[in-house]
Amino acid sequence: MSTTKIPDIVIARLPIYLRALAYIANDGTQVTSSHEMGEHLGISPAQIRKDLSYFGRFGKQGRGYNIDNLLTRLQSILGLDREWRMALVGVGRLGRAILSYGGFRPQGFLFVKAYDADPVIIGRREGDLVVENVADLEASLRETPLDIGIVAVPGHMAQNVIDVLVQSNVRAILNYAPIAARVPSNVYVRQIDPVLALQSMTYFLTHSASERA
Amino acid sequence: MSTTKIPDIVIARLPIYLRALAYIANDGTQVTSSHEMGEHLGISPAQIRKDLSYFGRFGKQGRGYNIDNLLTRLQSILGLDREWRMALVGVGRLGRAILSYGGFRPQGFLFVKAYDADPVIIGRREGDLVVENVADLEASLRETPLDIGIVAVPGHMAQNVIDVLVQSNVRAILNYAPIAARVPSNVYVRQIDPVLALQSMTYFLTHSASERA
Repeated sequence: MSTTKIPDIVIARLPIYLRALAYIANDGTQVTSSHEMGEHLGISPAQIRKDLSYFGRFGKQGRGYNIDNLLTRLQSILGLDREWRMALVGVGRLGRAILSYGGFRPQGFLFVKAYDADPVIIGRREGDLVVENVADLEASLRETPLDIGIVAVPGHMAQNVIDVLVQSNVRAILNYAPIAARVPSNVYVRQIDPVLALQSMTYFLTHSASERA
Repeated sequence: MSTTKIPDIVIARLPIYLRALAYIANDGTQVTSSHEMGEHLGISPAQIRKDLSYFGRFGKQGRGYNIDNLLTRLQSILGLDREWRMALVGVGRLGRAILSYGGFRPQGFLFVKAYDADPVIIGRREGDLVVENVADLEASLRETPLDIGIVAVPGHMAQNVIDVLVQSNVRAILNYAPIAARVPSNVYVRQIDPVLALQSMTYFLTHSASERA
């Protein structure tokens, strides 16, 4: 399949469709429609049909989608039919909350390494892992190559950690630090940033409030 | 200013520009360019100029932007020249990490209330706050109206909490629970969801790997 023609925004919606399907299937429902999915997600049925059409034909006109089929196809398209091995860098309060979050493993995202710079934290057991020294990150990843790096260090340390991850052939990074990470074009970064999310809402709060006044 | 003509994606980029400006100004730099901002962010200078042009003229051709002016204007456009009062619902491990995150207050986002359902957690002191009973959420928000709700409860409880926030006139919600929140069209929701972010990268990892193979 060629990936170049599919807009990034379409790819970004596929995991949301996956989650809606899992939700709808939860009570035993086997068939759904773009209408039902759209109701659940607040996305127009036409948008859903158009997005899915990039990946072939699902369901028949007027009969809806077989949920199992569509789930399996979307999981395969998104590469979710395998396990992804992850390293956490930064095991402070945020890092520990990330490690203990129950949502990663059921989706195939597995922490196999954790690193920190603080001598008090290094050597500590967190769940199945023992926290290693971040100074050994590069050597450690040479020995145990990983797919995904999760960065939960303070902002001023983040770019350096990200550089080491990139040098160690980690090609996907989930960055919790409040910086715009610089990476080569063959590396993917997603930012988890609550302040940016809040700031994108205050615009609408401010302007709709003044419109009402 | 009319808000209807400005695409949401442009609004979503403004906080990123704000952060880039603050970063560039950090060493005393007073003037920047769309080129320098673009380098820092991995966004094309043309895109930055086009986005900013929605809000008037900043800087002069060939002379760049005065950082202070642009920062102040963007903060005002985004409604960041005031304080925003927030309630946290869910003071488990994730909730405590959110409360202790140092990035909210310097940007004007202030927690003034925290709620939980667990009798062990209710009454506990967390920083300046004492955790209240979520059963009293609606009555409490009637007494102390707030701008923003932060939802960090388990998935199966989240929609109910969001409904109560909406009934209590909270018009912006930052949702950490892994559900597609349903809200009326005059309420804004942003989702903080690491699994969705990971799933949007595995697509690219999978397909670029198979292209190389």
